Amino acid sequence: MGEDLNYLFNPGSIAVIGATAREGSVGGVITRNLLTKFRGRVYLVNPSYTELLGHRVYRSVLEISGDVDLAVIVTPAPTMPKIMSECVTKGVKAAIIISGGFSEVGEEGAKLEREVKEASQGRVRILGPNCIGVYNAFNGLDTFFIPQGRMERPKPGPIALISQSGAVAAAILDWAARKGIGVGLAVNYGNKLDIGEIELLEALAGDDNVKVIVMYMEGLKYPGEGRRLLETLRRVTRVKPLVVYKAGRSRSSGRAVKSHTAALAGNYEIYRALFRQAGAVEVNNLMDALEVAKALATQPLPRGNRVLIITDSGGAGVQAVDNVESLGLVVPELPQELRSALSKSLPPFASTANPIDLTGSATDAMYKFVLDTVLPTSHVDMALVLAQMQLPGMTPKLADYIIEARRFGKPIVVYGISANEDAKAFKARLEDGDVPTYDRLETAANALRALYEYAIVRGLARPG
Amino acid sequence: MGEDLNYLFNPGSIAVIGATAREGSVGGVITRNLLTKFRGRVYLVNPSYTELLGHRVYRSVLEISGDVDLAVIVTPAPTMPKIMSECVTKGVKAAIIISGGFSEVGEEGAKLEREVKEASQGRVRILGPNCIGVYNAFNGLDTFFIPQGRMERPKPGPIALISQSGAVAAAILDWAARKGIGVGLAVNYGNKLDIGEIELLEALAGDDNVKVIVMYMEGLKYPGEGRRLLETLRRVTRVKPLVVYKAGRSRSSGRAVKSHTAALAGNYEIYRALFRQAGAVEVNNLMDALEVAKALATQPLPRGNRVLIITDSGGAGVQAVDNVESLGLVVPELPQELRSALSKSLPPFASTANPIDLTGSATDAMYKFVLDTVLPTSHVDMALVLAQMQLPGMTPKLADYIIEARRFGKPIVVYGISANEDAKAFKARLEDGDVPTYDRLETAANALRALYEYAIVRGLARPG
Repeated sequence: MGEDLNYLFNPGSIAVIGATAREGSVGGVITRNLLTKFRGRVYLVNPSYTELLGHRVYRSVLEISGDVDLAVIVTPAPTMPKIMSECVTKGVKAAIIISGGFSEVGEEGAKLEREVKEASQGRVRILGPNCIGVYNAFNGLDTFFIPQGRMERPKPGPIALISQSGAVAAAILDWAARKGIGVGLAVNYGNKLDIGEIELLEALAGDDNVKVIVMYMEGLKYPGEGRRLLETLRRVTRVKPLVVYKAGRSRSSGRAVKSHTAALAGNYEIYRALFRQAGAVEVNNLMDALEVAKALATQPLPRGNRVLIITDSGGAGVQAVDNVESLGLVVPELPQELRSALSKSLPPFASTANPIDLTGSATDAMYKFVLDTVLPTSHVDMALVLAQMQLPGMTPKLADYIIEARRFGKPIVVYGISANEDAKAFKARLEDGDVPTYDRLETAANALRALYEYAIVRGLARPG
Repeated sequence: MGEDLNYLFNPGSIAVIGATAREGSVGGVITRNLLTKFRGRVYLVNPSYTELLGHRVYRSVLEISGDVDLAVIVTPAPTMPKIMSECVTKGVKAAIIISGGFSEVGEEGAKLEREVKEASQGRVRILGPNCIGVYNAFNGLDTFFIPQGRMERPKPGPIALISQSGAVAAAILDWAARKGIGVGLAVNYGNKLDIGEIELLEALAGDDNVKVIVMYMEGLKYPGEGRRLLETLRRVTRVKPLVVYKAGRSRSSGRAVKSHTAALAGNYEIYRALFRQAGAVEVNNLMDALEVAKALATQPLPRGNRVLIITDSGGAGVQAVDNVESLGLVVPELPQELRSALSKSLPPFASTANPIDLTGSATDAMYKFVLDTVLPTSHVDMALVLAQMQLPGMTPKLADYIIEARRFGKPIVVYGISANEDAKAFKARLEDGDVPTYDRLETAANALRALYEYAIVRGLARPG
């Protein structure tokens, strides 16, 4: 990670400028969050107080004797140029300006924004203004100003999120937390006065905590950024997978983008081509982005596009084939000798062609037998396991067999729509064992497609 | 409902043939379910017992002195011809044969199936064999043989499900129950020895408890059924909306269909054309089918395809436009005089073009003002309200304002991804007030599209 942006995500010390204890206010939420969660030094700054929540309050950053790596600023826009000058004097390395009231509100705000930039003299790197800032689950840096009761925080994990929208980031982090998806880092860059998506991509590409980057974007702001974005994405995808959701795809939504982030949504087809050229995996919403990222963070890359499907429900098997094949993967009929081998140990009415339909007689042991028999062969490149935990022969023990099957070095994902006690235990055990689980077939299929697509990008598989 | 099928769904009395108290067995689950839940007379039949769970057990239906409207049969396949003859003698009106071991297992079973048909002399209408039967939330008729702990049952409601797959029906009912979606009736017809999807469609079309029919199908079984299906679907959609999910769309999934239900998946494009001609609403999975049905069961039909979007998150607004427009609906820019009227009472940086972006300053009252100002005008035909309950100005009170806006006679659906306490209360209140809520934008957009499509079918709106 470039040193400047390292201070943005991993500061040793933070000054909260505009610190307050006011319940429910933006500054109040941030002050409390940082005081209670951040694993580093936190200084409170506000000329109106001398003490807050039992902590000393400084009149300005200049009063602080220790080093300040990062300033988190929540004071009103007009105060910002002076505060920025003080940050420069103090030697602050980076600043997150949460406050709005800048270019997003018109010409006067834009003027203020330029003054802040000048005041920073290029010596303080700036995230924002008008942003929700940074969430770092590893060190407790959290400037998301929505209280915990309204927004749960995800556990540490290998996924990082770059979002052009703060509210969208807050909503999806809350969802990820409830789904148990580990999103270790998230960042929103607001008006992009200084740091934008391109530098953030570079920083996260070099961060060892991050295995997959998810990006939400609505459009670029400045001419010529497209080329830089393409080059950056290319560099990133050579190192780690990148999943992107681009909103603002129609004329009307382009209008909405302009009023939302002052960006140009541009022609969606051009963006699609750019992502394809860059080797990024595209999805159609952020939930799918994180679900797909879960697979990219845990599964080996497949050498081809052939999917083994095992099911305890013939109907779910049919639907799985539809979903998988509509995305360009294939469900090959297994060769006769392999089918004969399977038939010998499966119930007489099980279907062995692929999908392997174990029918209502399905047991954990049958799944294990199929995985152990078919996965090591050269006939399939990955597996989609469907299991509902509704049948009498099924138990959470199946999770262990699936986790053991990881030894064959092929991606495995699991689909189940049930949520009974056994289904919950089954899925929890799988997730702990780094096997992603899904409650929608489309999403499971999407995850396999993403693995295959990225395998092509990395030269491990050939286009089908 | 035709009288014969009325006995299938609404019998006054049931004989459970093969009744048992054995824990976890198919017969055991059904015997217990019917004894505890069915609001009518239940007779237990099994020559091996004289008493079970405190109830008298008859040696055969012929021993029962009262009328038997419906026989639910779980005995082994070879016993079936004799049992069917006894049912004819007894004057049983309909039978659900749960047991497998018939045409799905080969020629011997097929022979047995023909014998059962002959034995019935056309006097007992048969559902099955090899099916999961009927779930009727209104009267407690429940032959779904998965215990409650593994499959929750949905509350009574206006949606009916016809499923070609028993396991698929069980999985989706469980999901519907957890989502709080009322599915009052569900039926699976197994090997379709007698009663099939066409008669079931006709029966449900005439059932006043049913407002929307959802059908899951993999393929038809017999030549010539396509034409009858088209005619039936046409008759149904003239009376009530029908949502269909057809699986078995690719060559490989057609192979899976054949082994699963012995049906012909057929050419998917032909099915698509058939559904379109018949005025059925097509979806791509059963979750969406039920979600869309929720809107069709509660919302008035729109007169056009123009959607008002109100949001507290600019990004979600952009995404909503993408989703809505990708389905052929439009998000029109509102005329200047209306925008001026809105601007007067909204914060200066709210966007009034449509989407109406209330920004982070959003409050319940602002939503109410926009709904009351824009919905009654001729500029929009329906509304998609996005609300996250993450901002300080938002409370569950908004639900009341939205419910009040139903007076304008236009469909309203609500999207929110949050699940904090306020979000849960907000959504629960809306659902109680017959406003459908969604946690995926695609699904919300799909619901609006379905309403518009069905409005065209009913001649209320013109194709856009």
